[in-house]
Amino acid sequence: MSPFLHLCQQTIGANYVLSEQDEMLTYLTDQRQREVGKALAVLSPANSEEVAALVRLCAEHQIAIVPQGGNTGLVLGSIPDQSGNSIVLSLKRLKRIRKIDAANNTMTVEAGCLLAEVQAAAQGADRLYPLSLASEGSCTIGGNLATNAGGTAVLRYGNARELCLGLEVVTAAGEIWDGLRALRKDNTGYDLRDLFIGSEGTLGIITAAVIKLFPIPKSEVTALIALADVNAALGLLSLVQEHTGASLTGFELFSDFCLQLVHKHFAELPKIFSRSHPQYVLIELSSSETQEHTRTQLENLLASALQSGLILDVVIANSLSQAAAIWKFRELISSAQAREGKNIKHDISIPVSQIATFISATDTLLQTAFPACRMVCFGHLGDGNLHYNVSPPAHQHANDFLLAQAQVNRIVHDSVHRHHGSISAEHGIGALKKEEILLYKSPLEIRLMQAIKEALDPHQLMNPGKVIGVRHETTSLD
Amino acid sequence: MSPFLHLCQQTIGANYVLSEQDEMLTYLTDQRQREVGKALAVLSPANSEEVAALVRLCAEHQIAIVPQGGNTGLVLGSIPDQSGNSIVLSLKRLKRIRKIDAANNTMTVEAGCLLAEVQAAAQGADRLYPLSLASEGSCTIGGNLATNAGGTAVLRYGNARELCLGLEVVTAAGEIWDGLRALRKDNTGYDLRDLFIGSEGTLGIITAAVIKLFPIPKSEVTALIALADVNAALGLLSLVQEHTGASLTGFELFSDFCLQLVHKHFAELPKIFSRSHPQYVLIELSSSETQEHTRTQLENLLASALQSGLILDVVIANSLSQAAAIWKFRELISSAQAREGKNIKHDISIPVSQIATFISATDTLLQTAFPACRMVCFGHLGDGNLHYNVSPPAHQHANDFLLAQAQVNRIVHDSVHRHHGSISAEHGIGALKKEEILLYKSPLEIRLMQAIKEALDPHQLMNPGKVIGVRHETTSLD
Repeated sequence: MSPFLHLCQQTIGANYVLSEQDEMLTYLTDQRQREVGKALAVLSPANSEEVAALVRLCAEHQIAIVPQGGNTGLVLGSIPDQSGNSIVLSLKRLKRIRKIDAANNTMTVEAGCLLAEVQAAAQGADRLYPLSLASEGSCTIGGNLATNAGGTAVLRYGNARELCLGLEVVTAAGEIWDGLRALRKDNTGYDLRDLFIGSEGTLGIITAAVIKLFPIPKSEVTALIALADVNAALGLLSLVQEHTGASLTGFELFSDFCLQLVHKHFAELPKIFSRSHPQYVLIELSSSETQEHTRTQLENLLASALQSGLILDVVIANSLSQAAAIWKFRELISSAQAREGKNIKHDISIPVSQIATFISATDTLLQTAFPACRMVCFGHLGDGNLHYNVSPPAHQHANDFLLAQAQVNRIVHDSVHRHHGSISAEHGIGALKKEEILLYKSPLEIRLMQAIKEALDPHQLMNPGKVIGVRHETTSLD
Repeated sequence: MSPFLHLCQQTIGANYVLSEQDEMLTYLTDQRQREVGKALAVLSPANSEEVAALVRLCAEHQIAIVPQGGNTGLVLGSIPDQSGNSIVLSLKRLKRIRKIDAANNTMTVEAGCLLAEVQAAAQGADRLYPLSLASEGSCTIGGNLATNAGGTAVLRYGNARELCLGLEVVTAAGEIWDGLRALRKDNTGYDLRDLFIGSEGTLGIITAAVIKLFPIPKSEVTALIALADVNAALGLLSLVQEHTGASLTGFELFSDFCLQLVHKHFAELPKIFSRSHPQYVLIELSSSETQEHTRTQLENLLASALQSGLILDVVIANSLSQAAAIWKFRELISSAQAREGKNIKHDISIPVSQIATFISATDTLLQTAFPACRMVCFGHLGDGNLHYNVSPPAHQHANDFLLAQAQVNRIVHDSVHRHHGSISAEHGIGALKKEEILLYKSPLEIRLMQAIKEALDPHQLMNPGKVIGVRHETTSLD
């Protein structure tokens, strides 16, 4: 064992320094099993002070650090590279709910708390923490903040960023910044909080956070709506926003092909509509009104939309279990697509007003370049966020199609760029899209990011090779 | 005329380079008439390109720049210092509404648009831009963003920060960063937007922004409620939040002494309650429900609060003009206090759960140190934001009392710090509180801010002497 690892053992205890390959494997393996990184060790400190002590040790020995929460990220942001020179610093033992202040609608949590645990603790205090993602049972709140996680409730409550009031961060020099403010208004200097949020561990390590809580809605109504096309879905979004305001907490789009895939791979699910329609929208309203009031509101709205021809059919859930059944169609699309075979995924966002144009233009480009490729397009329409995935033609072997991944990515991302969108709406950059963003961001923006990286992590030890590269040219900002 | 000013004239036209003292006076004078700065000139470029050209010129000649919007700030952030070596760069000619995208609920505006003009343009597109402040007729959207303005609608819609999706910024090197994204989700790198927002022109100059729009509420109900103490107001806040959720758009507290001052100096106003009560709360609900529904909801809620003894009396507005009349009591407090004479102001925030404790503890400390001093305490209780002002004892001359300003500030700000609050909730730091924040922020936080300042403005030309000083020690972050 190296002197460095020996010092790590002295700092956090030998049990929490893993250096055998088999012990480290789950920490080194990407969520989608695409890559396995290499590391000197996996370190699991117990608290912020131990995190800081380890960072100081790493700084002294110039060892790079890959911070890791639940390791559920999709862009290779939380596993080390192949050099084998870095350590993985797992935050999973920082699991305390430090404080719940129901009267202030805030909760102070440590980075390693699972998102589901955070949701449950809020519920226990008769409050809602609205962040909700597919991986909520295994992702951590620290990882959610480091990647500015999104999910299904962004439309009403915002991303992880908007749900956070304060942070505790261990800097690249191993100092603890106590920015755990629980204030709705605080204009006393630069917004360090939002700089660390979404920086994917490249500027410092989030060890705790003050998050916002909300009253638990008293009613929740879910409906599935059939439509002729994406334009109709946009018209419906506008109508529902106008008439329900902040009660609209979910507006999810998926195509008929998505629904077909779900039925094919989950044959036990009942058919919802007697015949198929080109597009579907899942609407969720929730509010402090009674269940009856909210339901009547949605019924009236959708009845008028049916009458005007804006929508083709509708089913409104009569119970919580029916609502869950409707959500299941939306939630199972990813699994159904995985069972269908490998495919090429894109996590993009577009101004809502441009979405129909974008889908139609990009579908055409792809169908021209790859005849009979199958579009699996679904997502959070209310946020302009689409999972715009491409499956191979039915007759083609997936591995052959995947050889064209770079070309498919280029067609989609170029089209996103032309439509003023983002090539990573909610998953981040990690190592996966680090080169890709160089194609779409201005050199100035990259230089501004590099200047900040150098200012806060001068020795480039914090999650190196993620988000942004080191500045090569010697030109300074002036 | 100096060669530098001659070049400025060539760049933006001689009409837009003011260098005579009398022409410059309004640009050099602080909003509260406390200070008049000195400048080489006031420059008024027409567009972002001219701003960038002027910044490059300033960088070449090492001339400091004080960016200015409506010059309505309260912390000496938008006027130059006494050196006379800097220029004021007024953004007021950048007045275009570049784009309204109603389907995306966004609007792209230039920095010099007045807030009231932005509100009106949104209204014209059947949308709401909810930022609302006392100075909305003269402050600019660029200034609102540079200072992360707050106001009365933060409870529901957030600060200027939360209402912005993208920025265009001229950097300290005179380059134009196009970050005008109109996306709800975009995780492609460091959050430069939020770094520039609230940095008070010390990191770059905001020249345009994409701001969020909302559906216009269909109903609006305002009520004035009398209560026994601040604790009861907090109980009421909790009750109303639980039952009305996102419909609660205003929750303003003021004491009986505030109301007395308003009646004293605006004698034409009618009495609202037949007798006086210790505290008052103004509640505003607005939502997409009908006026009748929202009114009934508030009536029922307040009837039960009356019955349980939580509140002492209540008046609900029957019309828009009655609602405006109720708001007037809240809005006139500042003017009434000004007519009463000079006083010592504090713009603070405290976790909502701590507000009653804070007010009681701090009142006692002040009354002990300054017997018979008069507390003028009012503010946005829902955000934990108080304007905690202190008027001299009735018999004392204001100027004598103001000699004790530093001591009063120290008592209040120390107490704010003990209660985990902020000494500048919505007005910012400027030159006024630059020394004050050094007492309450950790040295680490100050060093992080300085590192960012040096990274983005290495020659310290952007609004020098505001927010943060130059780093004196040579210790680096590692």
